[in-house]
Amino acid sequence: MSSLSEGVTQILIPVAAFLGIGFALLQWFLVSRVKLTSNDSSNGYKEKLIESDEEEEGVNNLEMSIKCAEIQHAISVGATSFLFTEYKYLGVFMGVFGAIIFLFLGSVRGFSTKSEPCTYNQGNTCKPALANAFFSTVAFLLGGLTSVLSGFLGMKIATYANARTTLEARKGVGKAFITAFRSGAVMGFLLAANGLLVLYVSINLFKLYYGDDWEGLYESITGYGLGGSSMALFGRVGGGIYTKAADVGADLVGKVERNIPEDDPRNPAVIADNVGDNVGDIAGMGSDLFGSYAESSCAALFVASISSFGISHEFTAMSYPLLISSMGIVVCLITTLFATDLFEIKKVSEIEPSLKRQLLISTVLMTVGIAVVSFFALPSEFTLFNFGTEKEVKNWHLFFCVATGLWAGLVIGYTTEYYTSNAYSPVQDVADACRTGAATNVIFGLALGYKSVIIPIFAIAIAIYVSFSLAAMYGIAVAALGMLSTIATGLAIDAYGPISDNAGGIAEMAGMSHKIRERTDALDAAGNTTAAIGKGFAIGSAALVSLALFGAYVSRAGIKSVDVLTPKAFIGLIVGAMLPYWFSAMTMKSVGSAALKMVEEVRRQFNTIPGLMEGRAKPDYANCVKISTDASLREMIPPGALVMLTPLIVGTLFGVETLAGVLAGSLVSGVQVAISASNTGGAWDNAKKYIEAGVSDHAKSLGPKGSECHRAAVIGDTIGDPLKDTSGPSLNILIKLMAVESLVFAPFFAAHGGLLFNFL
Amino acid sequence: MSSLSEGVTQILIPVAAFLGIGFALLQWFLVSRVKLTSNDSSNGYKEKLIESDEEEEGVNNLEMSIKCAEIQHAISVGATSFLFTEYKYLGVFMGVFGAIIFLFLGSVRGFSTKSEPCTYNQGNTCKPALANAFFSTVAFLLGGLTSVLSGFLGMKIATYANARTTLEARKGVGKAFITAFRSGAVMGFLLAANGLLVLYVSINLFKLYYGDDWEGLYESITGYGLGGSSMALFGRVGGGIYTKAADVGADLVGKVERNIPEDDPRNPAVIADNVGDNVGDIAGMGSDLFGSYAESSCAALFVASISSFGISHEFTAMSYPLLISSMGIVVCLITTLFATDLFEIKKVSEIEPSLKRQLLISTVLMTVGIAVVSFFALPSEFTLFNFGTEKEVKNWHLFFCVATGLWAGLVIGYTTEYYTSNAYSPVQDVADACRTGAATNVIFGLALGYKSVIIPIFAIAIAIYVSFSLAAMYGIAVAALGMLSTIATGLAIDAYGPISDNAGGIAEMAGMSHKIRERTDALDAAGNTTAAIGKGFAIGSAALVSLALFGAYVSRAGIKSVDVLTPKAFIGLIVGAMLPYWFSAMTMKSVGSAALKMVEEVRRQFNTIPGLMEGRAKPDYANCVKISTDASLREMIPPGALVMLTPLIVGTLFGVETLAGVLAGSLVSGVQVAISASNTGGAWDNAKKYIEAGVSDHAKSLGPKGSECHRAAVIGDTIGDPLKDTSGPSLNILIKLMAVESLVFAPFFAAHGGLLFNFL
Repeated sequence: MSSLSEGVTQILIPVAAFLGIGFALLQWFLVSRVKLTSNDSSNGYKEKLIESDEEEEGVNNLEMSIKCAEIQHAISVGATSFLFTEYKYLGVFMGVFGAIIFLFLGSVRGFSTKSEPCTYNQGNTCKPALANAFFSTVAFLLGGLTSVLSGFLGMKIATYANARTTLEARKGVGKAFITAFRSGAVMGFLLAANGLLVLYVSINLFKLYYGDDWEGLYESITGYGLGGSSMALFGRVGGGIYTKAADVGADLVGKVERNIPEDDPRNPAVIADNVGDNVGDIAGMGSDLFGSYAESSCAALFVASISSFGISHEFTAMSYPLLISSMGIVVCLITTLFATDLFEIKKVSEIEPSLKRQLLISTVLMTVGIAVVSFFALPSEFTLFNFGTEKEVKNWHLFFCVATGLWAGLVIGYTTEYYTSNAYSPVQDVADACRTGAATNVIFGLALGYKSVIIPIFAIAIAIYVSFSLAAMYGIAVAALGMLSTIATGLAIDAYGPISDNAGGIAEMAGMSHKIRERTDALDAAGNTTAAIGKGFAIGSAALVSLALFGAYVSRAGIKSVDVLTPKAFIGLIVGAMLPYWFSAMTMKSVGSAALKMVEEVRRQFNTIPGLMEGRAKPDYANCVKISTDASLREMIPPGALVMLTPLIVGTLFGVETLAGVLAGSLVSGVQVAISASNTGGAWDNAKKYIEAGVSDHAKSLGPKGSECHRAAVIGDTIGDPLKDTSGPSLNILIKLMAVESLVFAPFFAAHGGLLFNFL
Repeated sequence: MSSLSEGVTQILIPVAAFLGIGFALLQWFLVSRVKLTSNDSSNGYKEKLIESDEEEEGVNNLEMSIKCAEIQHAISVGATSFLFTEYKYLGVFMGVFGAIIFLFLGSVRGFSTKSEPCTYNQGNTCKPALANAFFSTVAFLLGGLTSVLSGFLGMKIATYANARTTLEARKGVGKAFITAFRSGAVMGFLLAANGLLVLYVSINLFKLYYGDDWEGLYESITGYGLGGSSMALFGRVGGGIYTKAADVGADLVGKVERNIPEDDPRNPAVIADNVGDNVGDIAGMGSDLFGSYAESSCAALFVASISSFGISHEFTAMSYPLLISSMGIVVCLITTLFATDLFEIKKVSEIEPSLKRQLLISTVLMTVGIAVVSFFALPSEFTLFNFGTEKEVKNWHLFFCVATGLWAGLVIGYTTEYYTSNAYSPVQDVADACRTGAATNVIFGLALGYKSVIIPIFAIAIAIYVSFSLAAMYGIAVAALGMLSTIATGLAIDAYGPISDNAGGIAEMAGMSHKIRERTDALDAAGNTTAAIGKGFAIGSAALVSLALFGAYVSRAGIKSVDVLTPKAFIGLIVGAMLPYWFSAMTMKSVGSAALKMVEEVRRQFNTIPGLMEGRAKPDYANCVKISTDASLREMIPPGALVMLTPLIVGTLFGVETLAGVLAGSLVSGVQVAISASNTGGAWDNAKKYIEAGVSDHAKSLGPKGSECHRAAVIGDTIGDPLKDTSGPSLNILIKLMAVESLVFAPFFAAHGGLLFNFL
């Protein structure tokens, strides 16, 4: 038995969740003290003016504040309107897909309302398949709603914080950093805490019906992961196409043809570009990581429900995944204080080390936290289900599983930083290749991306081997959860990036001084790296989560082994490995086509609006926003359909073995494509920033802005945009979503799947 | 029993081989009738002058002939000298690796010279492991030598034919086409016939020792595949780096900076570029396809040796793979006549259809051929070994296996043509994306490459499913052989490309008229597509071959299943899927670095040699040749080591299951990377050619040469160079070679492997 009683567990989890929410609100409050306009008498400037020793620029310039507020408003309105339009589509999708889940799962036993013998907990009776169908659908809807809420709240705080970061940048880089980072933390903590709370409440509510049928209970709960991830898919793909269509379109005409700076207010696509950062990098990323979190929790819970403590109904041990996440919130809370209160950023060069320190601190603290949870929440010995056999496990085995996942995450994060930060030689080499033009820049960038896959894959492989050997599929699921346990910190440093990017855009648009733009650029450069780190975490955890879900699917579908040496499994494997390419082809081409439309519109405005280039007339921002919105909503459907339909079609026509092959294939191939795409894109972006910043002699010899080298670097940056912000990160969701969908539909496929092969 | 007696089989195979060699020599003789200089009285011009109705240009210009001969001589000397230098390195490698094979395999039973009980043919005694070690080493050396010979002969005929094609281009596109095509056929037939003959002779010689021990005999013969493929690896990688370093380097300075045409004699890298076409695209490709051919034959023979007809020693049935190849030579011979004698090319637009027709004719004829061989060579019913179980198979099952492979090859070829030929919309869309610059060109090109993977993968998957289901691993092996049965035709249309490319280069360098250059360009554009088709065949057959070798390895290593749901196999799978990225990172970066060196040298020559730009001084071609040679020889070692050492390290330290995972992972992931890389590169190249040729209104609106669009297209073309000619095609060899190496070393790994896991 666990040392922790059920009662204490039932208190600890919601307390941790509320603690996280409270901390997020506190951070939000602190950010809100930066006032956008000074119609408030206690405007907050005065006290800060007194505190600060740094050089300050135009702090009391009221006109500038108003201008920033206006731009912020435009961005916020654009982002909100896009998300609401997207949600309308998603609402329809949720309805339709919810109905599919209910019908498919309900049909497993012909919509019978009779109880049936349990699958694993033999001798007992479980609730009817129809009930599982109903509750899976409810969980699916709940997961979808929580995901949407996570993304929406993130977007709200980001669009609330961007102009405030700009204003703070007038006072120095430290102040701006704190504002951006706090805002990121709001998102991180809200997301982690909400995800935990909704899952916790759902389990307790579902239990009212299910009672002792934990098999059915936790099987239904997996719908939560499916809901979360399917929203994330559309969020990532739609948001990714939105942001990159605008970004690429704006750059191609603005930077390349018209030779005006990035984020120049004369560029008609500039508002769309900034809206894109919020709907793509913030809302999309939020939904994505929430999805991973929900799925790894669900996979762990499902596998645990058929373990020895699941069958003997030990609630505390069952709640081990939730307790790990609760501990994660506490650890991240302490970690955040190191960045916001215990240390202060004074120089540009301190930003990246500070963010890296966040990762390290949270990992070290969490390692202790995992040990505590493992020893108190788990029985000292128990058995786990392992594809038809049983496996003896000790509680300290599970400590190693979670900790390996956690540390693998750190290794992935640091490797990503090495390959995408312009402080190290890989990005500098790419920048250097710009000497001979765009072609060598691209060749070196692609090679860098390919190379950056090596260490993360070894880290993932080791994490898989250790946790798989120690605790079978449950080990993998909790290793994924370990990697995601510090999600609040991960998201904080990740969301910080696009906020800084937006802040820079607002500074440029508001016509602030070069110095302020330099500060926001420095924040943004670090943000590019943290964004890449965040993507590294997202893909690393996605790999582990998918494997755990895959294992759960195989258990649920009643397959004893997935033997590559059978034709059914092998063709699944090779076709599965092809899916990331098919998917990337769609998303890349979508961005390309949407960007071409954007280019035409931007060119049209420059050519037809008199005085636009001279700054005497205003561009029609709204039209560009509309183009991005329309394109992204239209273009997100085919890749979305590919991902959502593949498991259904393969499972129904070809059966569970081929589907298992498809999942394994898409997993092992998708991880590589995703990591290399994200890092290649991040490296090109920072190679460009390296040349622009011109900090070292080497960098100066390549620059300045507008030089031949810089032009070559801009081309690389533009190519990298869809790779790093659309197709790359969407692939995480492809592999996770296909796995969780297969898991949810496994009972149906096991009962009725494989029509085509049966026919042959 | 087979209808064909052993005696007839023993006659038919060598007859087919000699027929192939004879036909190749005839083609060579026909090519040689085009005289390079007219110091010969019967110079051959006269009669052709009379025959031809086409417009002719400067046919009797002796000076031009002499110039062409000079250039050809320089290219030939460069290529020969590179290959000989490469062979020195390879000689050392062969010696060392041969010793490793002997020591590793000899150690399986502690170098005992005693006979032992057979593994499969129970109750009988087989030759000692030491004998297998010795004969495997001999087979390895034979395979290596045949591979080197194939590549070398190909290079010789190509450098013999290039200037002759140029000279014939003066008489019209049809004449030039015939010359280039005949030369390609020389290579194709020599390679197919030599490969068959050496294999046939080796089997008969080995049989003198092995007698009735066919297990040991055909196990040792697999060394032939390993030898062929390891030479191919270095040929492909070394040749690929050579050709692309020169090509990229020449283009970056010549086309981009100096704005001089491709192949302009003022460009110091131009000879190196043309040498590269011969050592990379010709010798490398030849070795590669010979490797595939050798490996699929060996895999089929190995699997057959433990079938019912293997155990009962039916020579004709055992020789089914060789008889299929023999029939292939006859079919290709007839097919070639359709291109060289039965139809005549009169217009540029007839080139591509004619080449496509070759594929179709050979496939249709071969289908009949396969049926004939299957009915006469095989017993009507027999059993095959299928991972521990036995499988009942009928002879018409095998007809379907081979035919599926053959037709899958045709589907891959036609799909590749669709995605890389500028006659269709995919390449035209990529060209159109150049309107908005290089970035969109690259984005669309990458998307095209990703998309082009879909149909080939489905074709491969169907071929695998059908042949796997009908005849287990033997089915896969003969399906691969089916795809390669028309190798002579495939190689002919493939080798035709670089020969035309060289011919164009020679025309430019010799200062021939614009019209002649246009003709060779048209040949070359079709050549780009056929090169892509050839790469499609190479990768498709590599996928099937690798799977067959993988199956043979698994049988040999005594594994009953490769279950993805075991930690050992899964980590192998994910790490294996990473290897193509690691490998590509190395080769891409090698090309990039070597190209940078080339750029520096070319710039240096332009800056320091007075009068070079004006054409008054000659550049120092030799220095550029030396840079390419040095770079390629140095840079081919790390990727070569990665491929050669991975199976040894994984097998020795992690054991046979993990190695099985690695093979499956690298196979399913490598295929995708290889196809997309080859097609992306081919599409960019032809998008550029589409703009240059300006045949349609659309193309004209993008051009002409030197326009902004064209500049963007040149950037894409340059990026595509290492993708399509270095990293993409080398990946075939990666997946094949790791599989065949694992097969050869399987007895060792099964006996002594997995040290690390045993230790843990």
